[in-house]
Amino acid sequence: MSDMSEANETLSGAMGLLTRYHPLHELLGMTVEPLDTDSLCIKFAMRDELCGYPGQGILYGGVIAAVIDIIGGTIVSWSRLKDIKEQPLQEQVKRLKNIGTVDLRVDYLRPGKGKEFTATASVLRTGQKIVVTRMELHNEEQRLIAVGIGTYTVG
Amino acid sequence: MSDMSEANETLSGAMGLLTRYHPLHELLGMTVEPLDTDSLCIKFAMRDELCGYPGQGILYGGVIAAVIDIIGGTIVSWSRLKDIKEQPLQEQVKRLKNIGTVDLRVDYLRPGKGKEFTATASVLRTGQKIVVTRMELHNEEQRLIAVGIGTYTVG
Amino acid sequence: MSDMSEANETLSGAMGLLTRYHPLHELLGMTVEPLDTDSLCIKFAMRDELCGYPGQGILYGGVIAAVIDIIGGTIVSWSRLKDIKEQPLQEQVKRLKNIGTVDLRVDYLRPGKGKEFTATASVLRTGQKIVVTRMELHNEEQRLIAVGIGTYTVG
Amino acid sequence: MSDMSEANETLSGAMGLLTRYHPLHELLGMTVEPLDTDSLCIKFAMRDELCGYPGQGILYGGVIAAVIDIIGGTIVSWSRLKDIKEQPLQEQVKRLKNIGTVDLRVDYLRPGKGKEFTATASVLRTGQKIVVTRMELHNEEQRLIAVGIGTYTVG
Repeated sequence: MSDMSEANETLSGAMGLLTRYHPLHELLGMTVEPLDTDSLCIKFAMRDELCGYPGQGILYGGVIAAVIDIIGGTIVSWSRLKDIKEQPLQEQVKRLKNIGTVDLRVDYLRPGKGKEFTATASVLRTGQKIVVTRMELHNEEQRLIAVGIGTYTVG
Repeated sequence: MSDMSEANETLSGAMGLLTRYHPLHELLGMTVEPLDTDSLCIKFAMRDELCGYPGQGILYGGVIAAVIDIIGGTIVSWSRLKDIKEQPLQEQVKRLKNIGTVDLRVDYLRPGKGKEFTATASVLRTGQKIVVTRMELHNEEQRLIAVGIGTYTVG
Repeated sequence: MSDMSEANETLSGAMGLLTRYHPLHELLGMTVEPLDTDSLCIKFAMRDELCGYPGQGILYGGVIAAVIDIIGGTIVSWSRLKDIKEQPLQEQVKRLKNIGTVDLRVDYLRPGKGKEFTATASVLRTGQKIVVTRMELHNEEQRLIAVGIGTYTVG
Repeated sequence: MSDMSEANETLSGAMGLLTRYHPLHELLGMTVEPLDTDSLCIKFAMRDELCGYPGQGILYGGVIAAVIDIIGGTIVSWSRLKDIKEQPLQEQVKRLKNIGTVDLRVDYLRPGKGKEFTATASVLRTGQKIVVTRMELHNEEQRLIAVGIGTYTVG
């Protein structure tokens, strides 16, 4: 099996466990895809409901914070899942539920204008206790709108 | 007029301008109240839609990030509004729309368990260019669930 | 033995182990004291060597970052030492050497002017894997110059 | 004149103004060089004085925080200097002295082991009021030891 289809399969397992229906995800209208074997992306389209002011066409700060948090937590789960995929499903679920955000920083670099947005994440540090991730949010013109960095406990 | 009722009136002006209907606010089911003349609070009740996992009873990280961002931005607007309340409404709106989050840090200290949550914010630094705020999220037993710190541009 | 003298004795143990001679500490000319049983303070006096520009009388940013990091790490060690003080010295040393800063945020709220500076720290979250601390730097007029928040691993 | 020699010349101007003698710089034994026309690096060698524990061979956290702060502030000054280099020296000095760190985050990814260290910085956001920079610290084997992100006011 190719690395990429394996990445998809692992993701699908993680998604079944993790990105269960959530109202925030529905509000964002987001989909999660593996970018390559080490990074993930979330895509979502501009909608008036995601803006700070109706008609202004700029993503609301709270929406950006939520997306950055979600993609960070998802890549931690996904990378963790790769390590524990031989274990029984019940054990996998328990391990994934042990993952927690310790802290998160978001830098809002430019106004959140655009039609399509892509959030990506990669792992900066990994270990038995702590995982640190870097997140980025671009629009369809590859303009960097926000960056994030997050620290997570795994167990 | 007492300081407190003046605080309420200014807040009401800010709320009319700022906390216009937003799907995230509706999702949270939140209300905003002045705590005293210098600080604000947002109250919301636990609901299954706000949890990471249905039935687990723990607030979702993305929800906490969004609340911390919202209360931080709101107190910046509110404190700014006190400075510009003699100006015409159109000018006030323009000034408030110029406020932007520069960066935000959230620390998740304890699992988000509880029945009622209160987010509070106060201003740590104020100036003509930059405002820095500190935010806290407690449950109904006064357990500190998360703290935040945010930097905002004003103009 | 009173709580306070016990705090001092524990601190003295921690200091013997931890705040061994270090050129940064010497550069700062700092002393560490327990503030009460749960918090610590570092005191140091203004000197031209600590300023960004000679004669300007404002603490250098790199100096503030270093002080905030040092007081944060010291309170983690100190609070950890209280938990492990029954263990043999060798084990204590090993445990303290396992403490590591995961991340640190410093907010510079006001220019670092003054004659005497006091950095304080307290623990926001404690656990078997992670400790989170809040730090503050005041001058002799109780003006808040900088705040910090740090995440540390313990083991 | 080539872009690179111009970068060097601007840097030399900035350095004359900015990286004036400072005890922290001397303690680090650091030198500053332009990496290309848009980024800077600071190089310094491992010395026992920079370690947390004598003989342990791991950079002290406070030293890393200070280096990250210094490289961040220096690139802000340097990029600012490119914008104002036509102005009289006195005006340049005034502008540079107006630069201030608003906040700084440092993530310590791996133990600071190595023989030679290189800190680099680049600008993520630039504007009339705010500059945001990203910083990295590598050892001679290109291992990423720490990353930072900083927000600065310019005026």
